[in-house]
This record gives sequence, structure tokens and C-alpha cells, in this order.
Amino acid sequence: MTTTAVSHSDLIGASAADVRAAIRSGAYTGHTAGLAAGKLQCNLAILPEQYALDFLRFCLRNPKPCPIVGVGDSGDAKLPTLGRDIDIRTDVARYRVFRGGTLSEEVTDISDVWTADLVTVALGCSFTFENALVRHGIPVRHLETGRNVPMFKSNIDLVPAGRFGGQMVVTMRPIPAEQVDATREISRRYPQAHGAPIAVGDPATIGISDLSAPDWGDAVEIKDGEIPVYWACGVTPQNVLLDAALPICITHSPGHMLIADVAEDAETTILI
Amino acid sequence: MTTTAVSHSDLIGASAADVRAAIRSGAYTGHTAGLAAGKLQCNLAILPEQYALDFLRFCLRNPKPCPIVGVGDSGDAKLPTLGRDIDIRTDVARYRVFRGGTLSEEVTDISDVWTADLVTVALGCSFTFENALVRHGIPVRHLETGRNVPMFKSNIDLVPAGRFGGQMVVTMRPIPAEQVDATREISRRYPQAHGAPIAVGDPATIGISDLSAPDWGDAVEIKDGEIPVYWACGVTPQNVLLDAALPICITHSPGHMLIADVAEDAETTILI
Repeated sequence: MTTTAVSHSDLIGASAADVRAAIRSGAYTGHTAGLAAGKLQCNLAILPEQYALDFLRFCLRNPKPCPIVGVGDSGDAKLPTLGRDIDIRTDVARYRVFRGGTLSEEVTDISDVWTADLVTVALGCSFTFENALVRHGIPVRHLETGRNVPMFKSNIDLVPAGRFGGQMVVTMRPIPAEQVDATREISRRYPQAHGAPIAVGDPATIGISDLSAPDWGDAVEIKDGEIPVYWACGVTPQNVLLDAALPICITHSPGHMLIADVAEDAETTILI
Repeated sequence: MTTTAVSHSDLIGASAADVRAAIRSGAYTGHTAGLAAGKLQCNLAILPEQYALDFLRFCLRNPKPCPIVGVGDSGDAKLPTLGRDIDIRTDVARYRVFRGGTLSEEVTDISDVWTADLVTVALGCSFTFENALVRHGIPVRHLETGRNVPMFKSNIDLVPAGRFGGQMVVTMRPIPAEQVDATREISRRYPQAHGAPIAVGDPATIGISDLSAPDWGDAVEIKDGEIPVYWACGVTPQNVLLDAALPICITHSPGHMLIADVAEDAETTILI
């Protein structure tokens, strides 16, 4: 069966359901930044049920890097609290399958990999508060320059649960000094999207030696009068899952998020 | 060993740790309203590990009645993310033990009942937003009159998980019409304490036939110019646990909450 490929720009203005349909059909396999404006986008972690209780405990104990926004029944690919008719096996554009802590394959459909004991956990993503910052006239450098946000391993210990633990991954955004307070106040309104910054200023205080050499993503310029501001990052749970070396776990590929029907400024992430 | 009994008024101004110590020693067995001002108080649900994954899923899908603020390891009575040195077997003044969905005993210590497969889940409580309303000059009738908040079974369906499901229990507080918007805005700031109201006005819209006949707690007067405002209630998970008829589950007794070291207005409920 052939599907006609669509581009990112073709999907600007499309509803969350239409973007998911384009992804499900295989017509779109690209990133989701800027798509389905106003809708919650989610990081994805899929893992065997036997580890799910500890993973939920881990996320609940580390709500800034790991804000749970949805969780599926064991073996059930639906996520009705996040969106109508979501099928998690097909509705994300690109997945990474890890086996024993090693990347095994990157695929656009996990129907063949899905088993009856898998549990889906959806986690909030920084797109939500970035959109809010932009709406309030606060510059977001990596968006302005078309780059990935710079991400760094920090020395901030996570609260462990079972085999899950380690250090927090953080993102950095340079913010004009006079807008740091507003930035803190705005992002705090989104506890399901990492919330307020976890640190401001000197990177050494959180164990980062060189802001020009991120561990993931792209370095961005810090202009005169700007202060580096750090947020808990959704790569944290992916990193922790990798270290846990489960027999299998599946995540989205960076930037290729699950798009929910829930509004990103809704009080809860539960679809009504 | 004899301990000297202390009264509620003796403990006004005491720290959370000191109140817990008085409870642990057996010296205090009363309710916790008004104690350890500014600290988070929690509803309690303790259940066997085999049901814990579904119960966490249930709470995560119903965050307004069931906001998870802490979760223990299986068989571990500590809750280090909520407070230093908490021992959940002794640090709550009064517990209810249910077996097969029936109240089995009400006790002041569960050390004898505790087993290696029990999991503690702590849930946010309305004290948090009530304190905020009072600070903002919004009257809270049942507090003014020294009563329990009136609670009602509603017709609002919960999102089920495993054997957990049913309808939401709600609280009602009469609020002056001109303060309803402020009430909504203030309580929304506390997503870990039921958040914004789930309904305002006519009780029939949520399946309540008679506001003068609450299912739990005490009826309160609704004065001229006041509007009944309804919030999701922490009795919901207790009710759902009862209906699930687990072999064993343990809750706090109404009003006898776990007092955490976490500030009730902290961004997260994780002690740093």
C-alpha cells in the first residue's frame, strides 16, 4: 500500500487527530515541533509491566524531569485520557527500540514489536512552556536559530526507585536578565511540562563544565545581558531507562513526540 | 510504657516533625486540622503491591480527586520524599484497616498489620487550598462553624484502572458570588490538592439531589448571595478502595492526616 508523503509545512494548521492520522498512515515521519499548536506533546516510554510500578514510582519521585501525563493499561495500545483513538503502536512518527540498554532499531511503527505485557507512559515535554514563553515575548534562542535545545548531564541526583536512578539531564536557555523572573513565573504554571527552572546562572553549581559543549542537542549563543537558565529535561527518563538496561523498552525519537488532544494549558492532562 | 497525653492545643505551633513524634509516641491521637501550619497534609492509602500498579494508574487518570504526592517502596514504611524519618506504621494518629472491603479495625498504630508487600500512596488533601482561601479572605463555612466539610457522591464517572473505578466524591463550600472567580483562580494553583472546582452552582448537574443531606461530613448553611462550589474530594480514593474489596487496605481515619515536611505551597511535593 502506498501513501502520499506529506511535509512538515503541509501539516501546519492540521488538528492533532489529522497529524496523528498522517503519521499512522506512514505519510509523515518527521518531527512534531510547531504542529497541532496548543495541544500537549509528550515524551514516550514503553516498558514491560514487571518494571512499570518502579518506573511510575521513579517518575512520581522526580516530577520535574518526569511529569507523567498519561499511562496505558498493560498490553493496551490506547491512551484514551490523552486522545481519542490514539494507537501508540502507530501514532508516533519515529520510535527507538532498546534491548538490554542498547539501541536496537529506529522504526516508524512498533506494531511488530508490541506485546501484551507492555505499558505506555507519556511524559510532559518542554514544548509546552516554550510556547508560553514565546507568547509572553520571552526569546527562546534555539527556536530563533532553528536548532535543538542544548542538553547537559547535571550532577543533580534523582530520587531512585528500583533499578531506576542516576542524575538529571537539564536543558539550557539563555534569558535576558530582566526577564528571568517572568520566565520562572510563567514556566512554573506548567508542572506537567517541567515547571519552573531548576537552576539559574553559573553552570558549575549543577556540575556543567562547558556550556558550549552540550551532551545532546546544539550549543546556542549566550548574548551580553543574558543569563543561562536550566530546566529539568525529558531526556532524563530516557537516559535512566537506558541505564536500567531492560530487556526491551521503547521511546520516541527526539523531536518526534506523541501529540495529544489535550490542550497544553489545560488544568490536567486528562481529556474530558 | 506510659506516655503523657497531649491535646490539639498543646501542639499548635509545633513543627511537623514534633507533631509526628507526638503521634508516634502515642501521646496524641487526635485530628490534624490546623497543626503544623504551612505543611502539606496527606490522605493515605496503603495496599498490597499486586494492586499498586493499577491503583497508581487509577490515581494518575483521576488527578483531581487523587493527586499523588508520595509513594513508598514495597514493604518500606519510610516516605523520604515527604519527610525526614517518617514511619508510616506509627506516624498517623488513627488508621482504618479494611479487609475484603469491610472496615475491620480502627487503630493508632499499624506495626502489627504491616507486611513486606504493602505499598503506601500519599494523596493531596483539601486543607492546602482551604488554607490558601482563608489567607485570601475567602470564607470557608465549615471552618468558621467548626464542622466537617460536607461531602457528596456525584454522578461524575471516574476513569477506571483495573478493579478501581466508580464515581467521584465531591466537597461543597458556599462562596460569595463575587468571590467565585478568585476562589477558582486560587485553588487552581494547587494541583496537588484537588485544584480548581469541578462544578459551580446547581447541584443537580452533578447528580446531587439535596445539599442539606451530605453523604459524609456535616451540612452547612448557604447564605443569600452565596453559590455552592464543588471540589473533587480525597474521600474518592478511599471509596474506590472500599469498593475494590482488596484482601487488605489501610487508610487514615478522616481528619487524621499524615503531616509532611514539605511546604504546602512548594512547587512539587518532593522534599529537597
